[in-house]
Amino acid sequence: MTLKKDPLIQPLHPIVHTRLDLDRLRRQGLPETVFCPGKTQRQLLDIFRGLTEAGQNVLATRATPDVYAAVHRKFPAAVFHSDARLITLDIVPLPEPRGQISILCAGTADVPVAEEARITALRMGARTHSIYDAGVAGLHRLTSVIDQTALSNAVIVIAGMEGALPSVVGGLIDKPIIAVPTSVGYGWNMEGLSALLAMLNSCAAGVTVVNVDNGYGAGVAAARINRQVVQAQGMYSNE
Amino acid sequence: MTLKKDPLIQPLHPIVHTRLDLDRLRRQGLPETVFCPGKTQRQLLDIFRGLTEAGQNVLATRATPDVYAAVHRKFPAAVFHSDARLITLDIVPLPEPRGQISILCAGTADVPVAEEARITALRMGARTHSIYDAGVAGLHRLTSVIDQTALSNAVIVIAGMEGALPSVVGGLIDKPIIAVPTSVGYGWNMEGLSALLAMLNSCAAGVTVVNVDNGYGAGVAAARINRQVVQAQGMYSNE
Amino acid sequence: MTLKKDPLIQPLHPIVHTRLDLDRLRRQGLPETVFCPGKTQRQLLDIFRGLTEAGQNVLATRATPDVYAAVHRKFPAAVFHSDARLITLDIVPLPEPRGQISILCAGTADVPVAEEARITALRMGARTHSIYDAGVAGLHRLTSVIDQTALSNAVIVIAGMEGALPSVVGGLIDKPIIAVPTSVGYGWNMEGLSALLAMLNSCAAGVTVVNVDNGYGAGVAAARINRQVVQAQGMYSNE
Amino acid sequence: MTLKKDPLIQPLHPIVHTRLDLDRLRRQGLPETVFCPGKTQRQLLDIFRGLTEAGQNVLATRATPDVYAAVHRKFPAAVFHSDARLITLDIVPLPEPRGQISILCAGTADVPVAEEARITALRMGARTHSIYDAGVAGLHRLTSVIDQTALSNAVIVIAGMEGALPSVVGGLIDKPIIAVPTSVGYGWNMEGLSALLAMLNSCAAGVTVVNVDNGYGAGVAAARINRQVVQAQGMYSNE
Amino acid sequence: MTLKKDPLIQPLHPIVHTRLDLDRLRRQGLPETVFCPGKTQRQLLDIFRGLTEAGQNVLATRATPDVYAAVHRKFPAAVFHSDARLITLDIVPLPEPRGQISILCAGTADVPVAEEARITALRMGARTHSIYDAGVAGLHRLTSVIDQTALSNAVIVIAGMEGALPSVVGGLIDKPIIAVPTSVGYGWNMEGLSALLAMLNSCAAGVTVVNVDNGYGAGVAAARINRQVVQAQGMYSNE
Amino acid sequence: MTLKKDPLIQPLHPIVHTRLDLDRLRRQGLPETVFCPGKTQRQLLDIFRGLTEAGQNVLATRATPDVYAAVHRKFPAAVFHSDARLITLDIVPLPEPRGQISILCAGTADVPVAEEARITALRMGARTHSIYDAGVAGLHRLTSVIDQTALSNAVIVIAGMEGALPSVVGGLIDKPIIAVPTSVGYGWNMEGLSALLAMLNSCAAGVTVVNVDNGYGAGVAAARINRQVVQAQGMYSNE
Amino acid sequence: MTLKKDPLIQPLHPIVHTRLDLDRLRRQGLPETVFCPGKTQRQLLDIFRGLTEAGQNVLATRATPDVYAAVHRKFPAAVFHSDARLITLDIVPLPEPRGQISILCAGTADVPVAEEARITALRMGARTHSIYDAGVAGLHRLTSVIDQTALSNAVIVIAGMEGALPSVVGGLIDKPIIAVPTSVGYGWNMEGLSALLAMLNSCAAGVTVVNVDNGYGAGVAAARINRQVVQAQGMYSNE
Amino acid sequence: MTLKKDPLIQPLHPIVHTRLDLDRLRRQGLPETVFCPGKTQRQLLDIFRGLTEAGQNVLATRATPDVYAAVHRKFPAAVFHSDARLITLDIVPLPEPRGQISILCAGTADVPVAEEARITALRMGARTHSIYDAGVAGLHRLTSVIDQTALSNAVIVIAGMEGALPSVVGGLIDKPIIAVPTSVGYGWNMEGLSALLAMLNSCAAGVTVVNVDNGYGAGVAAARINRQVVQAQGMYSNE
Repeated sequence: MTLKKDPLIQPLHPIVHTRLDLDRLRRQGLPETVFCPGKTQRQLLDIFRGLTEAGQNVLATRATPDVYAAVHRKFPAAVFHSDARLITLDIVPLPEPRGQISILCAGTADVPVAEEARITALRMGARTHSIYDAGVAGLHRLTSVIDQTALSNAVIVIAGMEGALPSVVGGLIDKPIIAVPTSVGYGWNMEGLSALLAMLNSCAAGVTVVNVDNGYGAGVAAARINRQVVQAQGMYSNE
Repeated sequence: MTLKKDPLIQPLHPIVHTRLDLDRLRRQGLPETVFCPGKTQRQLLDIFRGLTEAGQNVLATRATPDVYAAVHRKFPAAVFHSDARLITLDIVPLPEPRGQISILCAGTADVPVAEEARITALRMGARTHSIYDAGVAGLHRLTSVIDQTALSNAVIVIAGMEGALPSVVGGLIDKPIIAVPTSVGYGWNMEGLSALLAMLNSCAAGVTVVNVDNGYGAGVAAARINRQVVQAQGMYSNE
Repeated sequence: MTLKKDPLIQPLHPIVHTRLDLDRLRRQGLPETVFCPGKTQRQLLDIFRGLTEAGQNVLATRATPDVYAAVHRKFPAAVFHSDARLITLDIVPLPEPRGQISILCAGTADVPVAEEARITALRMGARTHSIYDAGVAGLHRLTSVIDQTALSNAVIVIAGMEGALPSVVGGLIDKPIIAVPTSVGYGWNMEGLSALLAMLNSCAAGVTVVNVDNGYGAGVAAARINRQVVQAQGMYSNE
Repeated sequence: MTLKKDPLIQPLHPIVHTRLDLDRLRRQGLPETVFCPGKTQRQLLDIFRGLTEAGQNVLATRATPDVYAAVHRKFPAAVFHSDARLITLDIVPLPEPRGQISILCAGTADVPVAEEARITALRMGARTHSIYDAGVAGLHRLTSVIDQTALSNAVIVIAGMEGALPSVVGGLIDKPIIAVPTSVGYGWNMEGLSALLAMLNSCAAGVTVVNVDNGYGAGVAAARINRQVVQAQGMYSNE
Repeated sequence: MTLKKDPLIQPLHPIVHTRLDLDRLRRQGLPETVFCPGKTQRQLLDIFRGLTEAGQNVLATRATPDVYAAVHRKFPAAVFHSDARLITLDIVPLPEPRGQISILCAGTADVPVAEEARITALRMGARTHSIYDAGVAGLHRLTSVIDQTALSNAVIVIAGMEGALPSVVGGLIDKPIIAVPTSVGYGWNMEGLSALLAMLNSCAAGVTVVNVDNGYGAGVAAARINRQVVQAQGMYSNE
Repeated sequence: MTLKKDPLIQPLHPIVHTRLDLDRLRRQGLPETVFCPGKTQRQLLDIFRGLTEAGQNVLATRATPDVYAAVHRKFPAAVFHSDARLITLDIVPLPEPRGQISILCAGTADVPVAEEARITALRMGARTHSIYDAGVAGLHRLTSVIDQTALSNAVIVIAGMEGALPSVVGGLIDKPIIAVPTSVGYGWNMEGLSALLAMLNSCAAGVTVVNVDNGYGAGVAAARINRQVVQAQGMYSNE
Repeated sequence: MTLKKDPLIQPLHPIVHTRLDLDRLRRQGLPETVFCPGKTQRQLLDIFRGLTEAGQNVLATRATPDVYAAVHRKFPAAVFHSDARLITLDIVPLPEPRGQISILCAGTADVPVAEEARITALRMGARTHSIYDAGVAGLHRLTSVIDQTALSNAVIVIAGMEGALPSVVGGLIDKPIIAVPTSVGYGWNMEGLSALLAMLNSCAAGVTVVNVDNGYGAGVAAARINRQVVQAQGMYSNE
Repeated sequence: MTLKKDPLIQPLHPIVHTRLDLDRLRRQGLPETVFCPGKTQRQLLDIFRGLTEAGQNVLATRATPDVYAAVHRKFPAAVFHSDARLITLDIVPLPEPRGQISILCAGTADVPVAEEARITALRMGARTHSIYDAGVAGLHRLTSVIDQTALSNAVIVIAGMEGALPSVVGGLIDKPIIAVPTSVGYGWNMEGLSALLAMLNSCAAGVTVVNVDNGYGAGVAAARINRQVVQAQGMYSNE
């Protein structure tokens, strides 16, 4: 039993684990985003280095304080947005925010998802406007603020539990609406399935949905819409 | 291969298939109800005969036109409520309706469930009041009628798709609310699971739920509440 | 890499995260309730302060000992009901309990849910009566106590595992029954789905259901019914 | 386009589709049973012929009237048990029934499953005793008959909807209990999942379960137990 | 047994079943849409009459040939779009189509959903462009046409089975993308759940999703986006 | 804010939380069993005291080392069976084991469930015989031992993953078979659903099933069968 | 109401619904296969014409007799394989079958899936060998034939119900194994989920799985393996 | 209360818990593999000893650092592959790798599964080739490397989220493809169900699937195919 470690089985070389898509900024208007779960700290640091050496800003989602501590040691300019569980590291200026996206959320517990959406959209060049704690169990909290969405190009609506808010909002306004179910709940909701199914079955026509707790996806989707509108304005305004 | 039919295996004698719970009227305030699916026409006719011979009215749920035709041939006084899929056969007078129950439903496609609830409650002695097509995608249709529930002892709220109506109603009034999810929907709703989960996860405290499409159960539950209130009034009013 | 933190991305100001529904006491007979999970301690303390400054009592559900410790430091009058996982903070007298609600539960492991229901109902002005460990596997434990529900306006029935208790109770009495499934179980029950489905499919007509482990919702629902009855008595008794 | 049918692709020769397990009678005490769904009439007739030519009786489950008509044309001695959806064809005498199995069922709609269990057990040599319509919503219907199971070696308990009956029975007697969930229900029960989950989560220790509507399986399982007991008696009684 | 029909139980008067939301055209830019399933022919005809008498065009979804036959007898100008299962009845001119929406679908079996989306969007004033049979198993079919979406304001991507198409498209272009899962499949896909889950979990950021087979919802969502862009262009172009 | 603790809200008195079913020993042949999860240590100690003061032995399931430590301090005679997660405390002699039960399990990881079954059955008076690691992927491991079940009155078969073992065993022997699925697995098995569904759908007729990981239930069920057989032998053997 | 049909809404031109992937034969070794469900007869005929005009053979899956009748009228050389629900239309010679694939299936009801696999593999150039009705409930039926797979390059194993056969086969031989679950079952199996989950959780290492009832996919997968082996032999044998 | 521990209840003797299948190496070409979860450290050490004493190498899957520490103390030659969560202990030389398997994975988070597959296949004698981070959202990352699979006998394709990669790969090449879904995801994916369902429903014919995160199973399956091809080559090349 004195066999050596099998030479055929090499540890994976660090530079082969990820092949960065540096072209994504050109193709889609935002750099490749780093999804933290499932990656080792070493892999994450490699990716931060790769992106910044290529001259691109970094957005990392679902980051924990531990991950941030490791990143911050190597990249002191990195910022942790703890509500939104995001790390950002900017080496080139962000675009000037233009147009507008409204973000409504039903309850205080939905705020982390809302913040993830807000910061993502901001980084893609959209001005944002947030309205929190507007759940349907107190309709006046909603009806008193709904007119504030009138100048927005898209509206993100976030709710957990029964996920009714997008249906009510969808019946009141004619904007593009992106619904985000959250996993907030009181009993059996299968980690957000109740709100997800409700939003997919919304009786308000034209509501579209992203996955449970996916504030990042909602932010990107709204920013894609916002960019179309801003570009359209630009065609006629010399911008 | 000339064996006879095995004498051990007798066909089931018709009178053994059901043992009527004739005491239920005394114990619970309504006679045993006949659930039609899964019973043969012969079994159903036996049950109709058994109940009426015992001097009790009959309420049969989820009846098809075929079942009604068979019943009607033997019991010409039987009535078919086609919207509600109910057969009734009354040989003693129904109780005078008292108190009040409101029935709200979100869309026209929910009407069969609403009618099942309405007729069931009526037969248990509750006066009813129906408001149809009050879905949340047009909030003004709801807010303009919600005050009509002010004199009711219980409110039944029926909705399919995302099942948001009970949450909105639950936030506006302080009455007992019984939510009924329906299987009406446009895509993947797992035969009513979307509305069922939404109602179970309602952010409006105090909403209770019955099973999908179960108008009958909602009618009985509301009538149980109504009876408590009417009896309470009676204690002090010589009724 | 000397960029400053992007000034566009401000931390969320604490006063925007929640918009208290101070009107709920008038509209629904109980103040806004605080659901603790998903909220930071800072947000919770802000809400406690907001409600008490508005002259309203506080009920916070699903509280942990840690949350209570933080609340207690700022609000020494706050009380922790550890069985029920509730924090209460009262600055105005509670209503005098009237009427009656019975609370039956199947096993000792269901007690936390039962306590959550009991304290919630008490705070909404209902007198309560608890019967614990009355599961169907020992029927005599149930039949020997069922008559104690005769004076109640509503009966809350709590059970885990196969959730059979509401069906048996529902066949014995004619009161409004609110069934609460719990997540207690021995094998594959999908976190309470077994009891939830059983109660939704109860063969005892008129049983209504709240979500798994939702003692709070059951307490509110029963108190809504109790209030209807008490008010009805009051119409005729000069109260 | 005048190609002939490809000679490589032969239709399946009828004798290769099934390889009868004629040894099963010796190994397990009952001949191979024919499950009709998914088999063509031609395949079924081949199997009937194969078994009878080998001198074995035939039991075919889930048979439709159409299947029976086809079988009856070829095998006039075949008997159709329409309640139980079984076809039997006996060419050797059945064993004399001995011991006893009780079969309880909750509602009239569960009768087809009960009959499938009864006839299956009879054919494996068990005497049977049936009690129908003993659901838990009228407990007196159950308690008045439960003593009739005292002489049985096993008890089959059949129920749909919330599937509570086995738990109640399991708490009253100390016999082996085989629970059979049925797909009977009023709303969302996922084709019997509600009763299945309830029975698997029964708080009455020692309840075992077969699949939804599987009266055949329950009959075999009970007959296996019954045979053990009868054989044990026989060791000491010269049988 | 000579009792008359109970006078308390009136058939529902036809005019109470639906309360048309005639204000929706102003609020949301399209008239109320009629969802056919679950409505009787009499109810449908009442709704067609109500809308046209109010001067609004009619769009009815999920219509069968039978429904169309009944509608056509009363309203000869009604048109049946059989691929899309839609009935339209126009009494005022439709808006002139402007802007552009691209509709990609993966396979021929997805065409009905694509047609439902196309006609819905057209009626809301969007010009459309369809590309069929561009599934990912033959990538060249997709890459050869993807540039045709360059002038569109939104892209609808429709796929069944594994639902991979939106992820691939989402990685190639920067437009707003609305993914529509369909129930097309070869084995266990739970009526479209496979494609639905895939699209909700898309690795391409910014993809939003509507419910399974919900071409109507996708059409409205895309038209909402298209209208924002067209209006933006209009601000600067005197339209 | 100097309010005192509300006198209406009393902590639950310890003696009301549980009502012991001391009659169960007579009715079912084993004392009430204590299911530990969800009970506080104080409640558990009360129950241990209550049962022993009534002269009954104690069997507590799903116990953790912490629970045992607390129990052991008060009841030094209590024994912890760590493999089986059981605590036993015996104050009267156990019955002499008679008859026989075989316990087969597929893999080493299934041993805890097997031990729970074994000790439970032993305490109910059944002699047991264990065969471990007899999974179907090495058939010879099974076929070489199957004959050892020939003298057993019932056979418990335990398996995780695909749960195939009961089907293979069921085809080889004619004994009563109780299948126990376990939650052991390598990928997506939904906490034992794969094995549970497999056993419910076994092609070997007469296999009955208990819930996932429910060794206790299997032990009771097998002991119920064993007792029937032993009693039958006794009728003829002067025992 | 004299409006004409809206000229904007053209019926879909038949030639745009499908874009044939005529290159697939070169890329993957088989022509594009036609999946019939969800396509109109007109679309199917267009596809048959398109493929044959391009000189390719046609394989259409999940065909009904109605579809075949329509195809046969236009293409008299088309062949219907009714067991397998396949239509084939060959205008060029099929490849000579080489190598070998074994197809085992558990029960007679699994034969349609087995035939679909067999004919698909044959058309891709694999010689096949079928063994039917080898289920695990009669192990000798399996062990007596397993050696016949010794010369095969891949083994397809088909089973419904508990899906145990691939685990047993996987433990006996070292060949590549492709497991196919079928939807055959007796109770609650969720349309094949029981067998699917069992096969995915097989304790026999190296079993791979295709979707429920997907004989076509299994045939292609096995033929891909067979081709690799045949080509390897060819490298050294001048073929 | 001075009773001794019941002598009937012996702790399980360590040597009975596992019966090693030492014949597996001969039958299937790899020794029995040790699945760590659910086994105690004592059991694991016993198994390591048993296998090595029989002269077989050990492969243990899903090992934690704690397990490795315990193993390493007793068996210093044991190697921990932390990425792959594998322990290997070799006492005889591994086979020389021959043939080739390609391993593609979609994202960096899928690397642990890929490494588990790679090392498993290596140990069974297959040469491997890994390509990481080739997800479909950046198609050029895939198309630029796909030709590197041209010399492989089988291709393992690993992806989480929507699991689209195998469909795209399956449309580009004609090799045997084994798809491995992973549990990596951003929202509601039910622990990998999204990718699992997508791969089972792949529109690319001939893709086979193993369970979620089951890199080990994929490695064995691919090595089984590779061995067939290598053996075929050998027949003609004197190897």
